[in-house]
Amino acid sequence: MNILIKNAGVITCNASNDVLHNAFLGIKDGYIDFIDTGEEALRDFRADRVIDAKGKLVMPGFVNAHTHSGMTILRNFANDLALEDWLFGNVLPVEEKLTPEDIYWGTLLGITEMIKSGTTTFADMYLHMEEVAKAVSETGIRANLCRSPLKDSNKSAEDAVRCFEYFKKWNNSFNGRIKVYVEVHSVYLFDEPSLKMSAQVAKQINTGIHIHVQETLKECEDSIKKYGMSPAEICCETGIFDVPVIAAHCVHLSDRDMEIIKEKGVNVIHNPTSNLKLGSGIAKVDEMLKNGINVALGTDGAASNNNLNMIEEMHLAALIHKGVHMDPTLVDASTALKMATVNGAKALGFEGEIGEVSKGMKADLILIDMDKAHLCPVNDPVAATVYSAQGSDVDTVIIDGNIVMENRELKTIDEEKVKFNVKEIAKKVMK
Amino acid sequence: MNILIKNAGVITCNASNDVLHNAFLGIKDGYIDFIDTGEEALRDFRADRVIDAKGKLVMPGFVNAHTHSGMTILRNFANDLALEDWLFGNVLPVEEKLTPEDIYWGTLLGITEMIKSGTTTFADMYLHMEEVAKAVSETGIRANLCRSPLKDSNKSAEDAVRCFEYFKKWNNSFNGRIKVYVEVHSVYLFDEPSLKMSAQVAKQINTGIHIHVQETLKECEDSIKKYGMSPAEICCETGIFDVPVIAAHCVHLSDRDMEIIKEKGVNVIHNPTSNLKLGSGIAKVDEMLKNGINVALGTDGAASNNNLNMIEEMHLAALIHKGVHMDPTLVDASTALKMATVNGAKALGFEGEIGEVSKGMKADLILIDMDKAHLCPVNDPVAATVYSAQGSDVDTVIIDGNIVMENRELKTIDEEKVKFNVKEIAKKVMK
Repeated sequence: MNILIKNAGVITCNASNDVLHNAFLGIKDGYIDFIDTGEEALRDFRADRVIDAKGKLVMPGFVNAHTHSGMTILRNFANDLALEDWLFGNVLPVEEKLTPEDIYWGTLLGITEMIKSGTTTFADMYLHMEEVAKAVSETGIRANLCRSPLKDSNKSAEDAVRCFEYFKKWNNSFNGRIKVYVEVHSVYLFDEPSLKMSAQVAKQINTGIHIHVQETLKECEDSIKKYGMSPAEICCETGIFDVPVIAAHCVHLSDRDMEIIKEKGVNVIHNPTSNLKLGSGIAKVDEMLKNGINVALGTDGAASNNNLNMIEEMHLAALIHKGVHMDPTLVDASTALKMATVNGAKALGFEGEIGEVSKGMKADLILIDMDKAHLCPVNDPVAATVYSAQGSDVDTVIIDGNIVMENRELKTIDEEKVKFNVKEIAKKVMK
Repeated sequence: MNILIKNAGVITCNASNDVLHNAFLGIKDGYIDFIDTGEEALRDFRADRVIDAKGKLVMPGFVNAHTHSGMTILRNFANDLALEDWLFGNVLPVEEKLTPEDIYWGTLLGITEMIKSGTTTFADMYLHMEEVAKAVSETGIRANLCRSPLKDSNKSAEDAVRCFEYFKKWNNSFNGRIKVYVEVHSVYLFDEPSLKMSAQVAKQINTGIHIHVQETLKECEDSIKKYGMSPAEICCETGIFDVPVIAAHCVHLSDRDMEIIKEKGVNVIHNPTSNLKLGSGIAKVDEMLKNGINVALGTDGAASNNNLNMIEEMHLAALIHKGVHMDPTLVDASTALKMATVNGAKALGFEGEIGEVSKGMKADLILIDMDKAHLCPVNDPVAATVYSAQGSDVDTVIIDGNIVMENRELKTIDEEKVKFNVKEIAKKVMK
């Protein structure tokens, strides 16, 4: 389907940070065919659908670079608790009861929420990833999914065959919407042989790894005890950092860890809400950015956030580092926006495909309705999006050239059914 | 008008933190007449209007305890700049061009935004306060307004007469919706004689003072140079702290300052977004709360936030202190909610009138629509409101027993006209 978007303000997130006014944007066979402020571009374009974007802002869809989307079932279930109590006393006992079908519905709810707040791509790590892939394929969203080569994430019995099969079945499927990485939960749930084996598996199938790295001080201390090295060092040592890596958190990095991450080109995923809410700490994002490290943004799961709203993450990422370092020039609006879009695309292996509104890129776009009291007057579109917007301002979402939400109505998901089913699941697992 | 709200989940914010399910709530002559989970309460109640709150949550309206609402005109106008550059290079030159009528429209936009995100009371300090009072009176919102007894906030020529007149005209007007305090901008814009005179004026008319206190390190250092004392100390010395005080910010407090604030019963207004965005720092909120200091929440102006959304402030207040102190038990959801409601009511001189959903309180209530993907499953209503909700989830707003918004439609404000006029003003003053 060819789509013409007219009268659009456009935040491109391209290298020169172009912001356009009254632009025409053509989408053809899933790609951005042209983007222009003159009407001449329309001459040879035949649109099946025309979207009038007057009063709206077109920008790249957000990339939620680290989440566990099925955890929506546990949203607001256990709050304001110490990490051990939260995880071992509350979250894990409930997760043990979740069936594959529960995860399917929980993931559908996560995708519903993500699309409604402008996310067009996400990186997921959770249980029953077969169900997650099914939910992704059905809803039209783009995702980087991962599967562990271990039978059980805290046991080291190999399950590399199932990992290969998952990769073979889903990687690059659905017109390239799904990418498959290898899951390495963390250096605390894996041991040295299983870290090495996971790195081997990733190299063998020529893919990347999604891992939690140095989220808490305890993780760092335990790693020293277990390996005599920091998590980043043991990842380096075992080959984990030899492939493309999605490294969630990286809150507590020594200078040496920072050096390793820079040298190895590891993609760091900053999860500000989750790191604050669980009391993990505050990552040195400004320092990472100054070191040229690619920093993207993630929501983490709904049990530690407690939503999957990338506008809130972007907002928070632009605020907290200024406050902590008492410097209002840090992580400016444009930088935060890139962390939420183009940096995420790079981190998830979609570099050059999505994350920018530019000719030749895949059409993963959102339209934000700027005709709201809290966005008036706009004055600066980039700052308005980062500092003033809400998730609910996202009006229309296009992924891979398909309209998946229009005027806030979802086209590929039965939202009422999803909410109903997840409420039933929550009742079942929490009694 | 008598209003019956039925089938309501209720967060009361009362002393015992009661949360009710399927409650009936009667509003009579502007007051909460009853609140009950049994139908018996309905026997003698004759409702003119019935609101079915099924799927919605009733709670006290938010109290935005420190803002400059007319600054919406400057929303997103100057961002990511050092404070001096932001204020003197950008904000003040624009503010100098603002006419009383501009402030009227800017304030109306601020009130529009506040009502739409659930704020029912605010404390305002800005230019042309006559226009602000007019906007408050017309829209039906509740407010604590203030006026300086100086001719000009940075000159000390007395204008006490105009301050008295403003007080006489507006204090306790519109069924008690408007309260008038004395404005003392700060110890850096005032000098010692004008601080003393302002305290005298407040005592004479038996009212409180609204002041900025220790927002930045520079303010503290300058105060030592100017007075040989910290701002809190000079406020104490000059009698400013002898009356009820709304003290905005209090980011940088020494132990002695903390002691003074506690002893004098000063109400501290925490403005997390603004303090982060301007790089001012992070207030010791947890320590204040442990000291029994009343801490409320404010958005500050839209030029340093850049919106007037109390749900975001509450969210941030519940997150940042956990992260900075690496302790997830700090400022729990219930505490953050009270900071945004009942603590604000106390800070603004409305204690016992508003801030709780309890029999005999004035009916300042909001209904939050919980039937949203990002609020599903609810699991914990208080946590859901603090950690998952967006401003746009506020469905209905009742102030002083009057419905001012229903199904997100404003009843007392022509929103389109307000947005149009503010856009025109922004164009005029920013060219």
